[in-house]
Amino acid sequence: MDNVYAKRIENLRALMRAKAWDAVILTGSDPHGSEYPACRWKQVEWLTGFTGEAGDVVITLDHAGLWTDTRYFIQANIQLEGTGVVLHKTRIPEQVLIPQWLGETLAADSIVAVDGLCQNAADMAELSENFQLVSVPDLLDVLWTDRPLIPQTPIISVSPGESLEEKLSWLRAVLAEKGCDAALVSGLDGIAWLLNVRGEDIDYNPFVISYLLVGEDYVKWFVLKGEIEDPDTSATFDSLLSQGIELLPYEDAALALSEFEGTLLVDSGTLNYHLSSLLSCRTVSEQSPVNLRKAVKNPVELEGMRRAHIVDGVAMEKFLYWLERSLDNGKIITEWDASVKLGQLRAAGEGYMGDSFETIAAYGPGAALPHYITPRENAPILHQQGLFLCDSGAQYLYGTTDITRTVPLGECSRLEMEDYTIDLKGHIDLSMAVFPAGTAGCQIDAIAREPLWKAGRNFGHGTGHGVGYFLGVHEGPQDIRQNFNTQPLLPGMIISNEPGIYREGMHGIRHENLVLVTELPATEFGRWYGFDTLTLCHFDTSAILKEMMSPSELEWLNAYNSRVYETLAPLLPAEIAEWLKVKTAAI
Amino acid sequence: MDNVYAKRIENLRALMRAKAWDAVILTGSDPHGSEYPACRWKQVEWLTGFTGEAGDVVITLDHAGLWTDTRYFIQANIQLEGTGVVLHKTRIPEQVLIPQWLGETLAADSIVAVDGLCQNAADMAELSENFQLVSVPDLLDVLWTDRPLIPQTPIISVSPGESLEEKLSWLRAVLAEKGCDAALVSGLDGIAWLLNVRGEDIDYNPFVISYLLVGEDYVKWFVLKGEIEDPDTSATFDSLLSQGIELLPYEDAALALSEFEGTLLVDSGTLNYHLSSLLSCRTVSEQSPVNLRKAVKNPVELEGMRRAHIVDGVAMEKFLYWLERSLDNGKIITEWDASVKLGQLRAAGEGYMGDSFETIAAYGPGAALPHYITPRENAPILHQQGLFLCDSGAQYLYGTTDITRTVPLGECSRLEMEDYTIDLKGHIDLSMAVFPAGTAGCQIDAIAREPLWKAGRNFGHGTGHGVGYFLGVHEGPQDIRQNFNTQPLLPGMIISNEPGIYREGMHGIRHENLVLVTELPATEFGRWYGFDTLTLCHFDTSAILKEMMSPSELEWLNAYNSRVYETLAPLLPAEIAEWLKVKTAAI
Repeated sequence: MDNVYAKRIENLRALMRAKAWDAVILTGSDPHGSEYPACRWKQVEWLTGFTGEAGDVVITLDHAGLWTDTRYFIQANIQLEGTGVVLHKTRIPEQVLIPQWLGETLAADSIVAVDGLCQNAADMAELSENFQLVSVPDLLDVLWTDRPLIPQTPIISVSPGESLEEKLSWLRAVLAEKGCDAALVSGLDGIAWLLNVRGEDIDYNPFVISYLLVGEDYVKWFVLKGEIEDPDTSATFDSLLSQGIELLPYEDAALALSEFEGTLLVDSGTLNYHLSSLLSCRTVSEQSPVNLRKAVKNPVELEGMRRAHIVDGVAMEKFLYWLERSLDNGKIITEWDASVKLGQLRAAGEGYMGDSFETIAAYGPGAALPHYITPRENAPILHQQGLFLCDSGAQYLYGTTDITRTVPLGECSRLEMEDYTIDLKGHIDLSMAVFPAGTAGCQIDAIAREPLWKAGRNFGHGTGHGVGYFLGVHEGPQDIRQNFNTQPLLPGMIISNEPGIYREGMHGIRHENLVLVTELPATEFGRWYGFDTLTLCHFDTSAILKEMMSPSELEWLNAYNSRVYETLAPLLPAEIAEWLKVKTAAI
Repeated sequence: MDNVYAKRIENLRALMRAKAWDAVILTGSDPHGSEYPACRWKQVEWLTGFTGEAGDVVITLDHAGLWTDTRYFIQANIQLEGTGVVLHKTRIPEQVLIPQWLGETLAADSIVAVDGLCQNAADMAELSENFQLVSVPDLLDVLWTDRPLIPQTPIISVSPGESLEEKLSWLRAVLAEKGCDAALVSGLDGIAWLLNVRGEDIDYNPFVISYLLVGEDYVKWFVLKGEIEDPDTSATFDSLLSQGIELLPYEDAALALSEFEGTLLVDSGTLNYHLSSLLSCRTVSEQSPVNLRKAVKNPVELEGMRRAHIVDGVAMEKFLYWLERSLDNGKIITEWDASVKLGQLRAAGEGYMGDSFETIAAYGPGAALPHYITPRENAPILHQQGLFLCDSGAQYLYGTTDITRTVPLGECSRLEMEDYTIDLKGHIDLSMAVFPAGTAGCQIDAIAREPLWKAGRNFGHGTGHGVGYFLGVHEGPQDIRQNFNTQPLLPGMIISNEPGIYREGMHGIRHENLVLVTELPATEFGRWYGFDTLTLCHFDTSAILKEMMSPSELEWLNAYNSRVYETLAPLLPAEIAEWLKVKTAAI
């Protein structure tokens, strides 16, 4: 057995035998329900080699399984080869989820061990009915000898239009309304939003790993993980201390919570099983009220987001110009080179704080994986033919971006052009959508998909996700997808619009802008909302089959490209502005 | 106090005082959760004069309230005048439903009396937590001295492609799967479907008021309400007895259920509170499995439905021809005359068994009420100007129809033509929709609404409801509306497509066809469904603003009108066929 992962799984099984555990469940999350965990909590990757952003693992004495969704099937098949781990597909009609699979596989009352820190408390209810659940915090520590520590990075203060005091007043009013004595904020984006702080504890996410306990007359921030030496953090801490915030060690949260008396508001979406099992107080468990509050951006945040999209658009246009010229000049460019170049161009933007996720630069078949990882070594070389997909974004001090452009590098096949055009129709139709106040994303998802559906095409991911303000590039509670999320879209929410078409082994297309929900003039039939596109970067018109577009879609496209030119040209070198004028000419 | 309803309410209050009841709740339903009750159970109408199909009443000692939805606001305001009954609006964002209103109005532990026979059991859970609930079957009997009896009409047998034996085998397999010993079928459409019988106990609905108890080796039908004298019923009963069905008095259901031992499957949607409170056995309470099974039509039912729509289309075209010629010839025609004429033309169709609901014939402002009642006396006269809306349908031995046509009687205003065209775009866009297997109606509702939304228009009712096979013209579990009903649309389901635009005091427009969900060719992206339109009656093209229609919408319209002509012309008198040729000419 040469495979390192197969070996690690065997070592885990030895531990299981010693402890008499029948199964172990490990998740790809962290103690805060984060979508992107710090390296310390990449347990699934360490155990199986699978690097997808979503994946849970179950190990029994004779089976090792990875549960992941449509986005990662191709990737999982490649990465799991030789590990002995079997892929269990989710988000497909015939899915068998972990609780059901365990129910069919293990005897009742079997012992199932979990790392309770990395398990959502609410998710454990079903399992605990059928099995003896053993919560073992940091379960892998005895096997994972070089496991990374909990990160502690510099913490800065931000001023996004609402003060800490205002936010605490709002939260305390919510507590009073709900009859709660305190709120445990366990989601990292919520903590950063409430305290007006940002860190770098997690790649691409400006969060600080911590817990926050907000009572009627106190705020306890469990944040300290070691000596503080950097001036930014010291200044931030001084400012918070002067506002009455108590700073406490991260690991003290457990004790404080176990001793808490009264009624505690906890976030069902991020509270972990370990902490939950320590609570002896009365709890009110629901989606954190912070989520909806921070999803609706204030005027300062909106101004920042608009600025971020201008700065980001400049970098994107410089990148696309560089790409086209380099290939014209016969340079050898790989996907990785492209991704590095884009990062460099973005880094020149004022207030750039890093990328908002790992850039996907994918040429040809790689683009058929919606969550492709561009390889650092031996990345595919770009040729002047077919489609290149680039999904990227940045964190700025004043906003967050997320954009996908799919550009023709030369001649495209009829099928590529059809897919490119149909997908763009879906994107534009959603951009132009008008809907009544009270409408949820799932009720308008079909507007983006119908042009694809009519052509027998579809995609296996959501059409849109919420985006934070210099926070997570994915945030709730709103989305636009084929679920039954009842959260209405509200003016001030920012959401992506990103239909795609993927053909395994051939090509992939995705057109993505961020859009802002805005209020339109009311009529006698009610109040109306629509979308205002924030992202500024032209759509290439050379791969469009114009005869497939409706007059209103063409009108939108030409107006958008013209707006991109008018806004960005003054900020670009003359040569690139000239090039952009040609690229954005009306068709 | 001259108002008869105000007087009845005062009499009820006298009873309340005598019994020490703090409130009485009465519903517009019957003991079977029917949408249309027999006269005996039109308690809301008897007490308040309100005749809408949906409405619940709460009487306290100092307040009388009617709760009804957007469809009936205008009607309720008119009908409640002088009664002292206050309208409480539902299906609006600021709605306060009965349990909440009572909670805010009455002291805790107040005594609330209900007619338990006409209250859904599941709906009572919340009320019984906060109040002392008193169930008084036939509560109004002491006041309503001429209250009608439970109807008993002739019962016929039908042969819709599946035998009673096959249906019982299927239901018994479901019982086995759910670990139940018997099923109580309390919904009248389900009983008629299972037993392959039809009656006339309820206007427009070919149902037999009864309960059905299906066990592993017995079937008890609680149906007898008096002496049986008609030959149809005798023949049907003989046939059922020979197949082992026990026939029992309707009122014996209560005793049989109170004595039932074992596990009983009950229908949460139709089980009443009175029967539910008599049960001492274990129950499994969920939507009846019959609902979904009967919603997916078999080939014989589909053939019948297609035939019904040809026969119905002939009557509709004869009607529209008669209407136009009569007005051209200067005849005085009222809405009521039109409705009577249409009924006569339909009655000539083979296998016609009656209308499937009360015909709405509405000219001008009346059409702005989606559920307008055409008055028998002093009905508005039709003039050769503006729009006439007619929503109607029939029961045939081999199917059920439901169609709305809005036709210009002469010159129309620009606004009428705009609304007519925009609403037709919504209808056509949904007709042309393609969607993946697994899609629920709420996920495609926006396809019908988006053309309206873009123009700042909307409508307050659902876009589509399921339709039975010589059964209810409204049936679940599928629908197409702005709710979050997760039931996927399945091939074989029949559903209406009826967007509307209503302007109070001016005009109303609705374009309604029935459509069949059909499977389209699969692609590498999955399985696809679409709609096949069953209804056959031309859409008038003279009120269309052609420049507002897309090429594909025009193509659909012309193809549809052409199909109507090709199918119906051979069945129409030459003069009407000629007329129809002109009406269906391509635009």
